Amino acid sequence: MAHPITPLSPPLKDELDIVIPTIRNLDFLEMWRPFLQPYHLIIVQDGDPAKVIKVPDGFDYELYNRNDVNRVLGPKASCISFKDSACRCFGFLVSKKKYIFTIDDDCFVAKDPSGKEINALAQHIQNLLTPSTPLFFNTLYDPYREGADFVRGYPFSLREGVSTAISHGLWLNIPDYDAPTQLVKPRERNTRYVDAVMTIPKGTLFPMCGMNLAFDRELIGPAMYFGLMGDGQPIGRYDDMWAGWCAKVICDHLNLGVKTGLPYIWHSKASNPFVNLKKEYKGIYWQEEIIPFFQSIVLSKECTTVQECYVELSKNVKEKLGSVDPYFQKLGDAMVTWIEAWEELNPPKEASAAAEPKSVKKEEPSPKSK
Amino acid sequence: MAHPITPLSPPLKDELDIVIPTIRNLDFLEMWRPFLQPYHLIIVQDGDPAKVIKVPDGFDYELYNRNDVNRVLGPKASCISFKDSACRCFGFLVSKKKYIFTIDDDCFVAKDPSGKEINALAQHIQNLLTPSTPLFFNTLYDPYREGADFVRGYPFSLREGVSTAISHGLWLNIPDYDAPTQLVKPRERNTRYVDAVMTIPKGTLFPMCGMNLAFDRELIGPAMYFGLMGDGQPIGRYDDMWAGWCAKVICDHLNLGVKTGLPYIWHSKASNPFVNLKKEYKGIYWQEEIIPFFQSIVLSKECTTVQECYVELSKNVKEKLGSVDPYFQKLGDAMVTWIEAWEELNPPKEASAAAEPKSVKKEEPSPKSK
Repeated sequence: MAHPITPLSPPLKDELDIVIPTIRNLDFLEMWRPFLQPYHLIIVQDGDPAKVIKVPDGFDYELYNRNDVNRVLGPKASCISFKDSACRCFGFLVSKKKYIFTIDDDCFVAKDPSGKEINALAQHIQNLLTPSTPLFFNTLYDPYREGADFVRGYPFSLREGVSTAISHGLWLNIPDYDAPTQLVKPRERNTRYVDAVMTIPKGTLFPMCGMNLAFDRELIGPAMYFGLMGDGQPIGRYDDMWAGWCAKVICDHLNLGVKTGLPYIWHSKASNPFVNLKKEYKGIYWQEEIIPFFQSIVLSKECTTVQECYVELSKNVKEKLGSVDPYFQKLGDAMVTWIEAWEELNPPKEASAAAEPKSVKKEEPSPKSK
Repeated sequence: MAHPITPLSPPLKDELDIVIPTIRNLDFLEMWRPFLQPYHLIIVQDGDPAKVIKVPDGFDYELYNRNDVNRVLGPKASCISFKDSACRCFGFLVSKKKYIFTIDDDCFVAKDPSGKEINALAQHIQNLLTPSTPLFFNTLYDPYREGADFVRGYPFSLREGVSTAISHGLWLNIPDYDAPTQLVKPRERNTRYVDAVMTIPKGTLFPMCGMNLAFDRELIGPAMYFGLMGDGQPIGRYDDMWAGWCAKVICDHLNLGVKTGLPYIWHSKASNPFVNLKKEYKGIYWQEEIIPFFQSIVLSKECTTVQECYVELSKNVKEKLGSVDPYFQKLGDAMVTWIEAWEELNPPKEASAAAEPKSVKKEEPSPKSK
């Protein structure tokens, strides 16, 4: 064939894990087979650990249920949410790869306006492997794309850009709306294919959705904590938002880039807006205080790693948001626990090599895998 | 016909002027006739005032050449550039309308991907009449567009948005590149139609191009000064950039919005890159100091009007950029002259009513008009 559907050698095949949180059989992967089968999957099974999740034949995966999370993390498992897709960040923790692509199990392959199926992962990889431009806005969108460049008036000293840490993809069909908007516009579908990738400018926060998301785990992984949501917590559906606010503030501090736009996935089914409203309602008014908090935070110059930034952020959360609700005290503590877990499972490379024989026994996750 | 090309009543017909700087006959208007003929044109003739500029029949216009500029402004005419498209801002000054659309005479009607001719002005008007969202990023682009909304996680308190002051349109075919990029990529054409309008976030500068631009003159007019360029000046092709930097900083201070994206025009002919390089080269290195200057400027709380902001900005320009080159001392003075001219020709409405009989004689421009 003149145009094979997948490239002969899938890009970053050995450097990328696909993380999928789920409560059901992963039939949705059938449609993704041409694009995702070459990659390794980390499946985080939410809810009842006794349930058996079926994965289509031919996929290479490891699967963790709640018992595995408890076994791997011990008391630190308290930082991983239960009965909420926030549990996906456990997959980020146990991955040993440089890149992560995470996708929801109700997301299917979308088509571009020409009718061609979109390889979402390939676009995310392209986004991550080209620089971002957070310091000045380029009106022709991503200047590193074929057929585009920096426009007149763009400072030359800024044209190298900065490393891209996060690639945020979008959704055709069911848009990612909150419960009130879902209730008001039950029939709205996103049919507009916007052929653009752009950098979110420095100092600007954005609502990061976890449905179709990729990132450089080495650059920003420890900030990709999805918080305390779901079972036993006062809110849900703010897991990815929380991670996005924290990660964006840290990217800005460390001079890293965040891109949004392409690729699109096809989001098949709107979640129940009544259930969502129950999960969201505290977040809806808390965020009116959370956003100004994140907009005004200044991390100290001494914070030069993501972990240091994140621990400082956790202190600020407890101090400044603790008065909004006791929940934020608990969340601040969980943020620290998360970093401790991250450092335990991801020791610095030199330390890792030295400690290998010991740490393998104690810490290496041993999931059910294919 | 079921779908007339132009709406029965053109929007804002009596509230909008179209400003065109030119040195040649305006044949390009033929193609724009279906969309622009209902509106009033202000033509600013650059170069030799003896030359006769032909305007296609049926257009309602007033035309100013250099002699008219000198007559209307007297000694203040020094702030209006000569032999440079920067002279277009004279049209902004003498307009009495609320909105301005300005377009270059090498810009033609573009087609959308379905092959339909794009009414650029109608899209600009839509951009200006709907709010902007500079305080938080919406990943589905302009939330006020049909079929779009604010996504999950967007703070509800920010969903009213702010008034839109500027609508920056883009270009198919010849992209707006600087001379070095033109030289390096002589054959690059912009063929990507990005179906999006977006707000440029607060605190982020952008390269504003004057080719296809609309704005609310009442909200931001006095900041739309295109500087000292061309004849007798050390630089050219930075007129719109200068206006964009100044206007964006003032929009951010006054809580006004700037949108970019749709509409596209068809930019027909690349200017000569060798000539452009000569005009641009000082700007190319000066901008490395100008951008940090604009990025760090903080206007004082006492500045509550565009004029006050602009005068304060002019002081900063002289103080902080004066050391870069004596040109900026001159530019800072010209900025003040511009504001004086603006206030003379655009007295506050109450004062205007009282002073009408006197001011008409002294100040009212009397151009050659159809």
